[in-house]
Formats: sequence, structure tokens, C-alpha cells
Amino acid sequence: MSEALKQKAAAADAADVLSSRRELFSLDDGIYLDGNSLGALPAHVPARVADVVQRQWGELRIRSWDESGWWTAPERVGDRIAPLVGAAPGQLVVGDSTSVNVFKAVAAGARLRPGRTEIVVDATTFPTDGYIAASVARMTGCTIVPVDPGALASVLGPATAVVLLNHVDFRTGRLHDLPSLTAAIQGAGAVAVWDLCHSAGALPVDLDAHGVDLAIGCTYKYLNGGPGSPAYIYIAERHQGAFDSPLPGWHSHVDPFAMAPDHIPGQGAVRGRVGTPAILSLLALEAALEVWDGVSIDSVRAKSLALSDFFLECADAQVAGGVRGPGSRVSLLTPVAHGERGSQLALRCAEAPAVMGRLIERGVVGDLRRPDVLRFGFTPLYTSFAEVERAAAALVEVLAEVPRGTLA
Amino acid sequence: MSEALKQKAAAADAADVLSSRRELFSLDDGIYLDGNSLGALPAHVPARVADVVQRQWGELRIRSWDESGWWTAPERVGDRIAPLVGAAPGQLVVGDSTSVNVFKAVAAGARLRPGRTEIVVDATTFPTDGYIAASVARMTGCTIVPVDPGALASVLGPATAVVLLNHVDFRTGRLHDLPSLTAAIQGAGAVAVWDLCHSAGALPVDLDAHGVDLAIGCTYKYLNGGPGSPAYIYIAERHQGAFDSPLPGWHSHVDPFAMAPDHIPGQGAVRGRVGTPAILSLLALEAALEVWDGVSIDSVRAKSLALSDFFLECADAQVAGGVRGPGSRVSLLTPVAHGERGSQLALRCAEAPAVMGRLIERGVVGDLRRPDVLRFGFTPLYTSFAEVERAAAALVEVLAEVPRGTLA
Repeated sequence: MSEALKQKAAAADAADVLSSRRELFSLDDGIYLDGNSLGALPAHVPARVADVVQRQWGELRIRSWDESGWWTAPERVGDRIAPLVGAAPGQLVVGDSTSVNVFKAVAAGARLRPGRTEIVVDATTFPTDGYIAASVARMTGCTIVPVDPGALASVLGPATAVVLLNHVDFRTGRLHDLPSLTAAIQGAGAVAVWDLCHSAGALPVDLDAHGVDLAIGCTYKYLNGGPGSPAYIYIAERHQGAFDSPLPGWHSHVDPFAMAPDHIPGQGAVRGRVGTPAILSLLALEAALEVWDGVSIDSVRAKSLALSDFFLECADAQVAGGVRGPGSRVSLLTPVAHGERGSQLALRCAEAPAVMGRLIERGVVGDLRRPDVLRFGFTPLYTSFAEVERAAAALVEVLAEVPRGTLA
Repeated sequence: MSEALKQKAAAADAADVLSSRRELFSLDDGIYLDGNSLGALPAHVPARVADVVQRQWGELRIRSWDESGWWTAPERVGDRIAPLVGAAPGQLVVGDSTSVNVFKAVAAGARLRPGRTEIVVDATTFPTDGYIAASVARMTGCTIVPVDPGALASVLGPATAVVLLNHVDFRTGRLHDLPSLTAAIQGAGAVAVWDLCHSAGALPVDLDAHGVDLAIGCTYKYLNGGPGSPAYIYIAERHQGAFDSPLPGWHSHVDPFAMAPDHIPGQGAVRGRVGTPAILSLLALEAALEVWDGVSIDSVRAKSLALSDFFLECADAQVAGGVRGPGSRVSLLTPVAHGERGSQLALRCAEAPAVMGRLIERGVVGDLRRPDVLRFGFTPLYTSFAEVERAAAALVEVLAEVPRGTLA
């Protein structure tokens, strides 16, 4: 059975239109299924960062704000991300952490709907989104309404100002239906804010096509920007004139170097800027994005689904009854239906900490969401089908090794 | 005359206890008097950044959050800055831009004084501080009260919640009296927030000794952390239990990886954290701070004042009547009194853009604050008295070359 799966993997790798991308990354013999947490290093990035440090900072120093394009990097890098999320140029800027961008988007989103008093948030959202939305609500006198995205219609109403949803749930890997949910939100007269952390770079987002209002996302997962690389905010062009940032730092001013006492915002996505961006991290991201040149996000999505399908096939095939069969210690949290699946698989297992520890010892790196969830991320630019087969086999072996009830 | 000044410079350099620090920086034949805007590159930083990129990110990947100390870097780097601003350990965290830290400090500062409704801000502050303070006021229903720091007493009262002041004015280089102003603010029952962007690393701040409540500052000027290196917030220990952040991101949670739906803040300066920090920029800063090992901030201050005194002496001596004499085209905005001077000189000159352009052509890099201010920053770790003499001579020459009324 295992030999047949290896042959199937080899055939899939041979037919993979993205297989050559793997060479663009710095990888080793391990199997890295945690690109949904921190993407691997593109091999050309160290030299680019060295140039930023040694020449741009070390030699040109202050002149680099102009001569090395530091000042305009937030918009330039935003425009580089834009096609990956289906946005025309001029609608994304990069800077600050995801949390800070959530703050901007939710607060500014609520200001687009004066008089409305409710901020709706995915009840199972990545925690920081919920914490930050609650802070916005507290500062603006709004009320937080937590909701299961499947029940969104039941809470939308004339008081709904803004709705913050995750495109893909960080824990379960469930993909939410962005087009229909956006339409429902807008049908209620509210502003739709999407968190793309777990979808950008893994599947088509099509922000413009679906008329999304605002979106934010990190860049260190599928976009491979490096640890803590700055996040982005998408401000749909039609909202830019009214986008009223709660963090109107000097970089968003129409004439920053006038050093004027009153804040007059610039026109465009620049309104999403705040203060001086972390240039080393930002330009590492800019370099990292080159691995996407010529890549179709549809081919990424097709491979992503094929990889996770294959993981399940391999895991199920190697245990009598399947790893997800009756009496199995593992249950799948991620939907099987393609239309509801992101680019990760989440498996619930009582012994998850012990299982993940042993997988990592074998060089299969996924991650653990306490107390009992194993996450495996599939990054189509550098994950092969052969790796998926080996990872699934390792999981099966580890499950056989770890007695039930083992805590760590 | 010039020869005497050169000899004086040589003697001062020979006696300079900090002169050996210059070798720690990557410098060239130019004269860099813009370290008050972007500090020079410490020579060991490129290799350290390369290690972060290639080994920590490229090889260890996600494991570096633990094994390379990424998770604890905001506190660790904060503790490294702490002695430079006179703070005991455990009161500074590093992350986010200066603007975002102003937002945290002013909003959380106002929350320490519930019922009070006024936020007082230096009327000539660096603009972003004023813009952000105004945003906090708008979001919290407070009123902004702009004030000349010299007239602070006239606006303090029972309604004053928080006062945000700059230790050194970015434009004029005026040093404000932190101890007496802090005492006045606290005497009125308000919270004192200091912006240390233009003083940290240039002169003693002594936050703990003077009982400052909150402070923020950037790290890319005198601290040489690199372009856009993350800023810090100081939360005096006595306020940490009540510090209520307006940006309660998951990194400030008591148990971030519990991924709990409710935000329960951790104890300590961690409350100043928000989201995932820009690790490349943060660890470049950490490396850069090593140039301060063994440096006394009092010796830095003594040299800083000697450098700026000498610049004025040289400039005045080389023009009949002095560059600041009657009829001179240059007037000094920075106070002459040591107790009122930071580590920069600001000269007003109608032809400032043309003058600075020509100085830069000669390799003397200061900067321009439009429309008519020339700024020269003195960075005691790497600026020599010989450079100051040459820079002043260049200024005198350029003034002779540029006709009055020249606009650029």
C-alpha cells in the first residue's frame, strides 16, 4: 500500500506545474508543514537583506529614504501583494502588525457607518482580532456581537456597523464563503472587514471582484515575508476618500514633511499608514514576494487541495479502518468539502502534544494548538507530494507508538 | 584662525574618552551630522542580521520563536535600553512604531485618570504625537489642550488627565526640564508621558529617578537601531497593574497560546506589547545596542555639549561678526544654555534648502526642516571634534557661495 502511495506521489510531483518553485527556497531534509505559521526563507532574501543593511543603511544612510525608495515601500510592497488577493493597484499598504491593522480597519470601518452601534466578530476568530475589536467597541461606545459565521444572518441588522470575519479559521482550517458573506453584510448596510492571514497566498481571494470593503492580513505565513514581517491593510478605492484612521500618524499626512500641526490625510491607501515602518522587515518581505512572479493563484489553490486530499488519503490508507475511522484517536476538524477548506488540516487528538513532539523529532514540523489540535499546513510553492506521503506515514507510526492517555 | 581651531579639535579628540567607539561604526570620509534622524550602522550588525535571516529563520524556522528567543525579545531588548534612559529592568518593551506607542501611552495614561477630560500636548511637538493624541481625545471624548511647555502651569488643573511632552524639541533642539515639568504634572494629579525620541542615547533621562509615569521613544536615532527599528514604551512599575492598553493584542495576554476568547493581560511591561513584532528589525536593534556596553551616559552628554559648543565656536570664528552676529543670515534656534540644549543645533536661514543641498554635496550631511531650518545632530559615539570643525568651515563657505534669496 505504501509503495503505491509513493508512486502516486512521484507521479503527482512529476506533473506539478509548481514543482520548480521549491528551488527558490532554503529548505533541508525535514518536512516543513508549518508554512501556515511561518513561511520558509526564499533563498535570495539573505543577499537582499544584506544589501539593505550594508549599503542602504550603512552607506547611503538617511539618503535611502529617497534614493533606496524606503519612503514609498509601504505602497510599493502593497501593490506587489495586491494581485495575490485580487486587488487592483493602489489599495494596499504594508506596515504595522496584524493586530494594529485590525484596529485601523474595525475603527475606520465603524466610522463609515455613523449611528450604527454594533461590531460583529467571528466568535471563533484568532483571539487578537477579537481582543482588538472589543477594544474598538469600548473606545467608540459600540457593542461587540460574537457570531458563528454560519449564523451571520441572524445577527445582521440596522445597528450593524462593521463585521470582522476570518477568511480561513486559524484553528480548524475552515474556509468561509467570502462572496456570500460579504453580500449579506453589505445587504444589511454594514462594512465587511476580512482577515486574510490564513488565505492570502494559499487560495484566490478576489477582493475587488467580490466588492470587499476592507481587509487585513499578515505576510509571514504563505507570503513567506519572514518572522513578524509587516501586515497590510486593503482599503477599497471607493472608501479611500472617507477612510478615517484611528491612528493618523505622520506617514498618512498629505504632506508629511510640512510637519504641520493639523492632520490632513493624503489621498489613497496612504491613509492606512501610521509611523515609520520597520524597513529591514519590510524590504525582506518585498524581496520574498518575488517567488510569486509568474505564479497563478489558481494553480496554487489546485495544488493546495491536492496536497491535503493526498495527506488524508495516505493517512487513512495506512491504518486499518483509517485514522479517521470508527474508534480512531484522530478526528478531522477541517471540512472535507473543497469549498470549505483552506490550506491546512486540523486533526483533533487527545495526545496531540505528545504526537506533535515526536513528529518534530522525526523532522516533520507541524504545530500544536493546545490542548488537542494538530495542525498541518500545505504550502504549494515548496511542499511536495512525496513529503506529504512521508509526513502521513510518520503520523501513522507516531500514533502507533504513543499510548492513549499520553500527555506529552 | 582655522589652524588654531584644527589644533583645538585635535586636542579634544585626543582627550575624548569616547573616541574609540567610532571604530564600532561603519563610516566613511563624509561627515554625518544626521544621527539625530537615522543613526549610523554599527559594523557588527550585518553579520548578526545575516544569522537571524539565514540560520534563525532559514534553518530553525518556527522553532526560533523559542530557541532563538524571538518571543521574549521585546522585553529583552527593552531591558537593554532601560539603563540608557535610567530605568530599572522590567519596565520597557520594544515593538511597533513611535506613533503606535504614543497611542498606547496617551490612551492608557488617560485611563489611569478616569473622570478627567483633558489631554495636554506640547504645541510644537513632533506632529505625529499631536495627531495621535488628538485621535485618542476624539475616541475617548477628551479635549486636546495645546501648550508651550514653558506655560504648562497655566493649563494644568483638575481636568488634566495626561500630559504628553517632548524631552527635546525635534525642530529647535530645545531640552525641556523633565524633572520640574514631571513634578508639576503630577502635582496637578495628571499622568506625565514623555517622548524621548531626541534625548535617549544623547543625554541622561533618569526616568525612574524623576518618577516619570510613562514614556515612549524611537530607537533609530541616537540608539542606531536601523531604519524604522521598533520603538519602545516605558511603563513605570507602579502603573503596570493598572495599565489598560487600547491595543490589547495577543502578545500582551497572560497566556497567549491558550488562544482564549477573553483578553486577560499579563503582568508587567508585557502589557505594552500588541502583535507579532518585526523580528528582523527588532534583532538588528538588539545587536546595535551593544555599542553602548560600558558607556557612561554622562560622558555622552559631556561630549555632546562640547561638540555643539565647538561647532558654534568654529562657525562664529570664521566669519567676521560671526554667523550669528548682527546682520547674519543665520540665527540659532537652539538655546545656548546647556541646561536647555539637546544634542542638535538648529539654525534658521532663509536659504536653508540651498545651503543644505550644497553641504550634502560636500559630504556634510545634516538635514532640513522646511522651510528654513538647518539641523545638525551631534552623536557622541561617532562624531569627532575634527569633523565638527570641518563641518562648520563648510557651512561658512557655503553661506559665502549662496546668494541671499536663493531658494534651492
